Amino acid sequence: MTADTRQDLPFRYEHLGQDGAARTGLIHTGRGTIRTPAFMPVGTAGTVKAMYMGQVRELGADIVLGNTYHLMVRPGAERVAELGGLHRFSTWSGPMLTDSGGFQVMSLAKLRKLDETGVTFQSHIDGSKHALTPERSMEIQALLGSDIQMQLDECVRLPAPDAEVERAMLLSLRWAERSLKAFEAKPGRACFGIVQGGTVAALRVESAKQLAAMPFGGIAIGGLAVGEPQADMLAAIETVEPHLPADKPRYLMGVGTPDDLVEAVRRGVDMFDCVMPTRAGRHGLAYTRFGKVNLRNARHAADPRPLDEASDCPAARDYSRAYLHHLVKSDEILGMMLLTWVNLSYYQSLMAGLRAAIAARRLDDVVAETKAGWDRGLGD
Amino acid sequence: MTADTRQDLPFRYEHLGQDGAARTGLIHTGRGTIRTPAFMPVGTAGTVKAMYMGQVRELGADIVLGNTYHLMVRPGAERVAELGGLHRFSTWSGPMLTDSGGFQVMSLAKLRKLDETGVTFQSHIDGSKHALTPERSMEIQALLGSDIQMQLDECVRLPAPDAEVERAMLLSLRWAERSLKAFEAKPGRACFGIVQGGTVAALRVESAKQLAAMPFGGIAIGGLAVGEPQADMLAAIETVEPHLPADKPRYLMGVGTPDDLVEAVRRGVDMFDCVMPTRAGRHGLAYTRFGKVNLRNARHAADPRPLDEASDCPAARDYSRAYLHHLVKSDEILGMMLLTWVNLSYYQSLMAGLRAAIAARRLDDVVAETKAGWDRGLGD
Ligand SMILES: [Zn+2]
Ligand SMILES: [Zn+2]
Repeated sequence: MTADTRQDLPFRYEHLGQDGAARTGLIHTGRGTIRTPAFMPVGTAGTVKAMYMGQVRELGADIVLGNTYHLMVRPGAERVAELGGLHRFSTWSGPMLTDSGGFQVMSLAKLRKLDETGVTFQSHIDGSKHALTPERSMEIQALLGSDIQMQLDECVRLPAPDAEVERAMLLSLRWAERSLKAFEAKPGRACFGIVQGGTVAALRVESAKQLAAMPFGGIAIGGLAVGEPQADMLAAIETVEPHLPADKPRYLMGVGTPDDLVEAVRRGVDMFDCVMPTRAGRHGLAYTRFGKVNLRNARHAADPRPLDEASDCPAARDYSRAYLHHLVKSDEILGMMLLTWVNLSYYQSLMAGLRAAIAARRLDDVVAETKAGWDRGLGD
Repeated sequence: MTADTRQDLPFRYEHLGQDGAARTGLIHTGRGTIRTPAFMPVGTAGTVKAMYMGQVRELGADIVLGNTYHLMVRPGAERVAELGGLHRFSTWSGPMLTDSGGFQVMSLAKLRKLDETGVTFQSHIDGSKHALTPERSMEIQALLGSDIQMQLDECVRLPAPDAEVERAMLLSLRWAERSLKAFEAKPGRACFGIVQGGTVAALRVESAKQLAAMPFGGIAIGGLAVGEPQADMLAAIETVEPHLPADKPRYLMGVGTPDDLVEAVRRGVDMFDCVMPTRAGRHGLAYTRFGKVNLRNARHAADPRPLDEASDCPAARDYSRAYLHHLVKSDEILGMMLLTWVNLSYYQSLMAGLRAAIAARRLDDVVAETKAGWDRGLGD
């Protein structure tokens, strides 16, 4: 494969343009280049749900995310490695980022027990027992063949007392060091650290400063998008951003709505992932230039128009709203396939628009136009 | 659309070759030509489940089937007509056959009541009341824009007393006449009659003879594939076949497994439909040159080989059995998408092989090779 021949190129961030705090650039990896700001579709268990990987590539995604927790419990990291790694397994040949598994252990697994060493838990699938330490997480992500590995961190559920938030942040810093030590550096691959600290500005700053001094390939902002108001999330980004190295990519984990993405890009974030476009697509919701559309709504039942006749995406352009409504009401798999496609396509075109706007130093105008489109709605 | 420009050509069967009782030919319709023997993927509610229509076309299907019952209860035939017909609604531009709705009324609907006039029932979706008569079924199928409309018939559940089978067969003949009277003949479209008579040879023969004398575009054999042994089904075909007009297509409704198709083709059948390949694909089962494969089975869990590396179908060729196993075990939509694709592709390639074999008068050899492949299995 051609992708494999580039795996000797070093991982690096190339800055191309700036508009205010917003950045556009390229992240070079061994398996290809990621245009930033970038949205990473989530391929939880080795599949971007209801999509062929060829479609994901064609709609403009440069990188997808794989979930370490899901893959370690089924089919298992060693099994994936035997089969040639997650790229071959899933047929995605471009760059892939894997999370550490920690976040989903805390939200999905049973009988969780966390201490300085790491976390032990039982699989939500079959009750099998597992241990996840910073070292084991790095090992699993390497077995999967990840291009961007994430450190194991502890993400506390908010609201929480400041002392609890601080404890988790400091633990995450110690785990950051252990992760880096365990990370087997290879050309074209990187390990990212994760800023914690809840909504406590001083803790966020301390976390960011310490991580910035470590030899990570990039820095993520974690512990957000857990139900807090958007203003709190944006405030946390503003607190952290001045302390992040300008020559490394910044990744806001688990975010978000199109509006969240726009506002975070404005504040200097380069990378995003979220299940929202794929999950919404399986529940009859479409993200479009004209805002969020609930195809389950009866007002679409007799509407012969497509969601967006000017879209490049066949799913948005070639099927009537009436048909999409019918598929959603009938719980047809094709409804999920088409709306997931619509949503991922819209997210990618939104990011492409932001990249061009930053390069042209027109971000404020483009954001205003984009939001006006959302407010306008479908116009019926 | 180019398909629309041909709608003034007459509907006709063109015989191309014969090998024993087996036939190969072309059915010319206003929306395109169907190569026979033909397998029609089932597009129940305006979608071939888990497939894009473009894929269905690409894997070699010339015609798909739409279910009148499903579409009349949701979204409704008048609604589909307002939206430009089922072809535009579903984005399938080739020939489409619709059933009469009768079979599914009897298997799905509630509070069914059947008399000389027709059948009344409540929708299994929302309890709404509907009536289906021979005339209304023709009207609905015309509203959908069907290219091949099926008469309403009564299909009795077997086993049943001969007198009951005869009553239903005679009622179906009276409904055949009413259907033809109600059918609005248009160039390029046809109405098919349906042979009934259960497993009673004399009743089957009487039904076939009477239908053969009516101006139908083709004749279907109904009331089979309802749980009877394959031998009974094949015997019924052999009983009926000599009485079917040679210049009209013969359609065996609701059949079947690959072996059923092969044996029915040998006995002179031209057209088939069945939910088996699509339904099996949603349940982890693959039909291949090497027989039926249950991807849920643990023996596939570490198998890096594709289902069939020589297949033209990307789903059979480009994904490991281990990955398919993982998707099936994880209830991933992509697993259903890929296995449905595998199965419909195999069914089409099976039919293509039978067509070529009949044309070359090599059917017995090709059938023997085909069955040897099924018996061989995956070889592990
Ligand atoms: Zn999210
Ligand atoms: Zn069937």
